[in-house]
Amino acid sequence: MSPAPSRQWSLVARPQGEPADGDARLEEVDVPDPGPGEVRVRNTWLSVDPYMRGRMNDARSYVPPFALGEPMTGGAVGVVEVVGDGVEHLSEGDVVLHDRGWRERAVLPADAARVVDADLAPAQAYLGVLGTTGLTAYAGLLDVAQMQEGDVVLVSGAAGAVGSIAGQVARLKGAGAVVGTAGGEDKVRWLLDDAGFTDAADYRGADPGDLLRRLVPDGADVYFDNVGGPTLEAAIPRMRDHGRIALCGAISGYNAESPPPGPRTLGLAIGKRLRLQGFIVTDHLARMREFVPEMAGWVRDGDVVYRETVTEGVESTYDAFRGVLTGANTGKMLVRIDPDV
Amino acid sequence: MSPAPSRQWSLVARPQGEPADGDARLEEVDVPDPGPGEVRVRNTWLSVDPYMRGRMNDARSYVPPFALGEPMTGGAVGVVEVVGDGVEHLSEGDVVLHDRGWRERAVLPADAARVVDADLAPAQAYLGVLGTTGLTAYAGLLDVAQMQEGDVVLVSGAAGAVGSIAGQVARLKGAGAVVGTAGGEDKVRWLLDDAGFTDAADYRGADPGDLLRRLVPDGADVYFDNVGGPTLEAAIPRMRDHGRIALCGAISGYNAESPPPGPRTLGLAIGKRLRLQGFIVTDHLARMREFVPEMAGWVRDGDVVYRETVTEGVESTYDAFRGVLTGANTGKMLVRIDPDV
Repeated sequence: MSPAPSRQWSLVARPQGEPADGDARLEEVDVPDPGPGEVRVRNTWLSVDPYMRGRMNDARSYVPPFALGEPMTGGAVGVVEVVGDGVEHLSEGDVVLHDRGWRERAVLPADAARVVDADLAPAQAYLGVLGTTGLTAYAGLLDVAQMQEGDVVLVSGAAGAVGSIAGQVARLKGAGAVVGTAGGEDKVRWLLDDAGFTDAADYRGADPGDLLRRLVPDGADVYFDNVGGPTLEAAIPRMRDHGRIALCGAISGYNAESPPPGPRTLGLAIGKRLRLQGFIVTDHLARMREFVPEMAGWVRDGDVVYRETVTEGVESTYDAFRGVLTGANTGKMLVRIDPDV
Repeated sequence: MSPAPSRQWSLVARPQGEPADGDARLEEVDVPDPGPGEVRVRNTWLSVDPYMRGRMNDARSYVPPFALGEPMTGGAVGVVEVVGDGVEHLSEGDVVLHDRGWRERAVLPADAARVVDADLAPAQAYLGVLGTTGLTAYAGLLDVAQMQEGDVVLVSGAAGAVGSIAGQVARLKGAGAVVGTAGGEDKVRWLLDDAGFTDAADYRGADPGDLLRRLVPDGADVYFDNVGGPTLEAAIPRMRDHGRIALCGAISGYNAESPPPGPRTLGLAIGKRLRLQGFIVTDHLARMREFVPEMAGWVRDGDVVYRETVTEGVESTYDAFRGVLTGANTGKMLVRIDPDV
């Protein structure tokens, strides 16, 4: 046992608008041996997620901002390579889920690492469909939007990691119809041909109002909103009375330099008795216990399909993250780190 | 028994922006005797309410638009003066609540008139504190916003008919603090000196963000929104995590010629896990049974105070209505019709 080399991404400047090349830096460091109660993990998969954009700002939010000059954090899976004194529940070679992403190696408290069942699904699925990404879709749809059987469900960002799962869960839970918006014809084809959406359309270049009038001519009961912005503005008039909007993300505005306009249609929420409910997945972790076996069963039986967009090597992490903000991904955006690194 | 003269307000043009003089017309008509199952009522009090502005537009909403060339409708109380054949539960002289306002006399189905208990409160209170106005405040606060004991409650339009009741119900139900915004120093004084608000401020000429930072420095759990617009935009950042916003009205935009901007701050609803819930009182009429005795007790004991702004004569109705849209009223805006007319 001795210190091991690692590369890690630090935030060095707070982005103004789109994250620029110079806002983050890949650094080479030596990661020490774990102390008592700690383990050292060699990461094999890193998660990049839209919410990380908010952490780059110096703004109080539900997760604290990334500190300047410090390595960034985020979901990761890896292999335990050194176990510190007094750690009993982890062993060398265990595959674990933890939050020290954006790097090749990490030392962390053993309590902060959770062993995943790699027999149930590939390890990286715990960053996506079987992890908080999937739970976001599941809890957002069932607990926040309180989808009922027969509901017409509209999903934006429908080919994204969360949206694609939300739509499929809606179908499996008896939605009357599941329609989605996505950026690009290939994503739309995937939603229709593989993910079992009732209908889907490319929002790019389309008038949002026209698009949604065509997708949900008779209105929607549930809108699972991943994008905010003009799509949310257009969705509100399409909602049926007593409709429910789960505010999951607003990716259309994450790179905006000033707050984007709000929906001019919000006043309609009164007469339509709409409920708009913001949520974050960490309030719903108690659902994990039901969620994981149910979702694992759906995945095993082919009822839920998922896609991954994978980049290679820790050095690709920042670009992968920037890509997720512009829709470069279909499904979950992941960084694979060669386990032989 | 013979036809009786009446004057009534008809909508003759759909207002663009502020209702203009020529958009409504006072007409003289003869009201016939009631047919079988009908009564003729001589109105004594008419209600004018902000929601009526929406009915002047030709837009599908929770209530159908007023028809052009037809007399407008709205809450009224009056005295039964002629009873048609077969009507058993109403007698001449009964004081009834009904929806044929905007006029001096009306013939209506007896089933559409409800006798009010004029011993419990003055008849016009059934258009305000003891009627759907009061119920809007009560149900919006308790059922929609689900106010809990200890909550900090913010009310906009706080000196209006609904807002002033919402704030007082909040206090009586154990709010930790009740603060309000209103238009004018006299209204603010009334909220502080008579209505028992913890704090209140004049929104006119103030920056909404500064105003609310001062009123709720540690944030609010509940926002009872009667005004929408810039105040709603400023309230969202002041909400505490898991805060609830009851969307009751958006009077700031009712006279707008195009949809006013939405709140640029809406994206904060995600991280704060806010719930914004639109509602209309007619979904909550089942609450009337508990509401009326509870509110009547509060009024009797002086725990709830209310104010009325009264104009005289049916000819004043249109101006009274226009005044309610610009805040000419404190408390309930009413038109009194001389019972000797």
